Amino acid sequence: MLRGGYIKQISAGIYAYMPFLVRSLNKISQIVRGEMVRAGFEELLMPALQPKYFFTEDETPGSHDALEGIFEFRDCRGSRLCLGWPYQNMVADLIGKEISSYKQLPKRVFQIGTKFCDNKRPRFGLIRAREFISADAYSFDIDETEANVSYFAVRDAYENIFNRIGIEYKYVEADAGLVDDRGCYEFIILTDTGEDVFLYCDACTYAATEGKAESRLKLYPQEPSESPMEMTEVYGKGLIGVEALAEFLNIPVWKTTKTMLFQADDRVVAVMVRGDCEVNENKVKRFLGCRDLTLASPEVVKELTGAEVGYAGPIGLPEEVTVLADEYTKNRINFECGANRTDYHMINVNFGRDLPLPLFGDFKLAREGHFCPRCDNGILRQARGVSVGRLAMLGQKPGQESRKNWTYIDSQGKPRPFVMGYYSIGISRMMASIVEQSHDEFGIIWPIPVAPFQVHLIALNLEDEHVREEAEGLYRKLLDANVEVLFDDRDVRAGEKFDDADLLGMPVRLTISKRTLSERRIEVKLRGSKEKELITYEELLKKLGYLDLKTNYTQ
Amino acid sequence: MLRGGYIKQISAGIYAYMPFLVRSLNKISQIVRGEMVRAGFEELLMPALQPKYFFTEDETPGSHDALEGIFEFRDCRGSRLCLGWPYQNMVADLIGKEISSYKQLPKRVFQIGTKFCDNKRPRFGLIRAREFISADAYSFDIDETEANVSYFAVRDAYENIFNRIGIEYKYVEADAGLVDDRGCYEFIILTDTGEDVFLYCDACTYAATEGKAESRLKLYPQEPSESPMEMTEVYGKGLIGVEALAEFLNIPVWKTTKTMLFQADDRVVAVMVRGDCEVNENKVKRFLGCRDLTLASPEVVKELTGAEVGYAGPIGLPEEVTVLADEYTKNRINFECGANRTDYHMINVNFGRDLPLPLFGDFKLAREGHFCPRCDNGILRQARGVSVGRLAMLGQKPGQESRKNWTYIDSQGKPRPFVMGYYSIGISRMMASIVEQSHDEFGIIWPIPVAPFQVHLIALNLEDEHVREEAEGLYRKLLDANVEVLFDDRDVRAGEKFDDADLLGMPVRLTISKRTLSERRIEVKLRGSKEKELITYEELLKKLGYLDLKTNYTQ
Repeated sequence: MLRGGYIKQISAGIYAYMPFLVRSLNKISQIVRGEMVRAGFEELLMPALQPKYFFTEDETPGSHDALEGIFEFRDCRGSRLCLGWPYQNMVADLIGKEISSYKQLPKRVFQIGTKFCDNKRPRFGLIRAREFISADAYSFDIDETEANVSYFAVRDAYENIFNRIGIEYKYVEADAGLVDDRGCYEFIILTDTGEDVFLYCDACTYAATEGKAESRLKLYPQEPSESPMEMTEVYGKGLIGVEALAEFLNIPVWKTTKTMLFQADDRVVAVMVRGDCEVNENKVKRFLGCRDLTLASPEVVKELTGAEVGYAGPIGLPEEVTVLADEYTKNRINFECGANRTDYHMINVNFGRDLPLPLFGDFKLAREGHFCPRCDNGILRQARGVSVGRLAMLGQKPGQESRKNWTYIDSQGKPRPFVMGYYSIGISRMMASIVEQSHDEFGIIWPIPVAPFQVHLIALNLEDEHVREEAEGLYRKLLDANVEVLFDDRDVRAGEKFDDADLLGMPVRLTISKRTLSERRIEVKLRGSKEKELITYEELLKKLGYLDLKTNYTQ
Repeated sequence: MLRGGYIKQISAGIYAYMPFLVRSLNKISQIVRGEMVRAGFEELLMPALQPKYFFTEDETPGSHDALEGIFEFRDCRGSRLCLGWPYQNMVADLIGKEISSYKQLPKRVFQIGTKFCDNKRPRFGLIRAREFISADAYSFDIDETEANVSYFAVRDAYENIFNRIGIEYKYVEADAGLVDDRGCYEFIILTDTGEDVFLYCDACTYAATEGKAESRLKLYPQEPSESPMEMTEVYGKGLIGVEALAEFLNIPVWKTTKTMLFQADDRVVAVMVRGDCEVNENKVKRFLGCRDLTLASPEVVKELTGAEVGYAGPIGLPEEVTVLADEYTKNRINFECGANRTDYHMINVNFGRDLPLPLFGDFKLAREGHFCPRCDNGILRQARGVSVGRLAMLGQKPGQESRKNWTYIDSQGKPRPFVMGYYSIGISRMMASIVEQSHDEFGIIWPIPVAPFQVHLIALNLEDEHVREEAEGLYRKLLDANVEVLFDDRDVRAGEKFDDADLLGMPVRLTISKRTLSERRIEVKLRGSKEKELITYEELLKKLGYLDLKTNYTQ
């Protein structure tokens, strides 16, 4: 997009959208607007400047996380203002004040606008920018059942948006973070280089982000008649990797254990997973309800286990270290784990006898090749993309019922908290993801409904008066026929014009030159194909009609 | 707008635009977009966040003034960011980098977006808000002649916008401030309470803001054979006002002089105007090229003149005080002025003899009743309104030619500065001004093209199954006919519904009730009129067609 001049960087993560791109941007916005209105949402527009108190009320779901990316400053009168993207509190305040009775529900609103994020590491161009455009939507319903109706209205709207644009996407379960546990889904636009990894079942519709995905593992049968053996400490210096360890100990890999120590806010926890698995930090974080989770430092590991990193195990840890264990470690007999002593491992360990039962849960990272958690025979596959849409139920946290703006009077005359849904779809991000998905080595391949121009008209041999007249005539005729045309009448060589057409990526390329005119024809080539055709103007109009071009940049 | 629920205040000068208003907002934006595109402008979108250096380069036209209203802060990495509205430097940087040759000119771009202003005293709702929506446009041309073509394209576009909306406006000369003296015009929407005062000629098209307006005064003939008399100091205690003074001295008012002392940046100047005139501070500021101009404090006046405020005069002031005099004081003989001594006045003063010639110029405030400066017989009238559009030529200041992004290579191969035009039209402000202009004691009267809904459908007697069915049927039929309808089917009394319809101000009110249905009719009332009609559905459709309703909120 930089090379094609679609965007220009102003500062890290801050871009100007140049004229061609704004045409796409407005088309996407208009598609989003239309679908949201059709889904029963009313458009409003909240200010970018938010008084600080919208971010600091303690009971706010997710408020703490959010503050990390918020620009904050004082105005000339000393009041604190913020510039950020979460609008849940403002919208609840605005709409909450309006809603007094169940008769006013459901209420559904959305806005399309610029949002800001004080990213430490802005990257991937428009995908993680510090200033971006998105449409965020909010639904207010009397209960969960009704909230689901709003939810599915948005899901359908988002699907319509992607389908109308003609872009490949996946609807996946996602991690709701600290918000609330009523389900959170994302729409991911598939791209080879996207930073959002997800898993999907090759047999059913299950799909989830890497942070959220569950999976089933092959259950290894305990060897027949295996009975608990005596726990033994084994010396094994410098065994790197579970395969080497398993071979050295002569046990299957699944009997080994990875024990990782994490700093979870201000305490340390140990997490055990089967040797052939990895820890999913999101799941641990969610289970603990903590804000920050990072691997414990080597110093902390040494202090708590008495050993170097790599030999931690669940046995004999200080009491203050909570031990979590993945459910797939639960039924093992005679398993291996670190000995909390450098170069030593314990074998023939058994829960209950050698160590107290840990807290079991789903703590492993689901991976390609694991079994689907939902269907019988599906295998999980991994793919990448860019998350551009997010749907979540905010609900009501225990203890928040008293907050005045989050309640309505129900049909029995009692105050009840309404159920709020929060939805967001990235518009500038979607635009960048479309380009990520739809390009080749020469440039962008714009899908017709969001292309800046539908037609790229190249005129060659312009020194020839006849060619110039015909080219300009064709240009005007196409404009009159409501086709959006980019007309390249520059005085540069043909190769440069064709290269630029490929780079810019308009769906239909037309060429007019001495040669085509000698046959009274226009050359047509679709950006996504290699074929060229020479056709008449009438055939061209028919072809364009077949492509269903609709001009909607301005009315 | 607050009472109708169109906006809600979030903080001083910060508003949320509620759903009905966003419909108007989008319609206005779309009208502006369409007209700007038609005028040959390409839409781009520059970020709200601007690195500080765009505001601090010394040679920037108007940069210092601008900085006063700019929000400034640091991001999480310590870089300085600004949030403001002047985009001249960014756009010159973006477009300047692209333009290398005269072949690429003219270049015309615009953007529609949210701007910010750290106003000390936000007021008048959306009119002086701290966050507002505007369309700013920029033209780049090879010379002044070509720049005028761009300029008039914008002027025509703005006129089309106001005419399409159907709003009364005036195109007036305005003060360009510190920018550059190549002409600056404003579009003012007429309202009774607007804070922008302007003068216009009752005979020709001349109109100008109060700060800019020139005027001609009646030239008083010097008395026949009047020759200079001896300058005399006259004692006159507590003479308040020029009329009392003139009467006391037995001279015409126009022979008296007002001498005002001003602090102009770090020096003091004296400004003389005829006694029947006032000083126009804008003109003084512009003449001096100073940044700040305020009345000198009583202490400073006393120190420099030796007298209390009210007795300052041009004679015997310290040398460092520059004396300016309005051109209409120039040819007087034997005039009066303050004596720089409390309670004393000088009479029979004459330039050249009693005091050195001051710097003459146009320093007086033009007022209602003055003669038009352009035509022979016109009299100036005063009116008020809200300035919503501004057009200015930025040009190139002397000494700025070297700035690389402000030059192109001309057809002779030489670098030349391009001429830049800057245009801005306030969208949220226009919306508020439309309401200011078009309302009555009951509420808003929306012009059809920008009304949130074209039709306000009121259904009464909804407890009657038949009425409900008919009302809902009509609602659906109108929607299918692409009419935008607000359907009031609330369970409240008729009076409340009619009052709300008047308050909200949709152009067409339809009422359906037992009574109207008994006559198989629908009651129609236009918001701007008192007449009600009972008509059939077919007649209604015809009437709506005649009103030329075009749905353009979503496509």
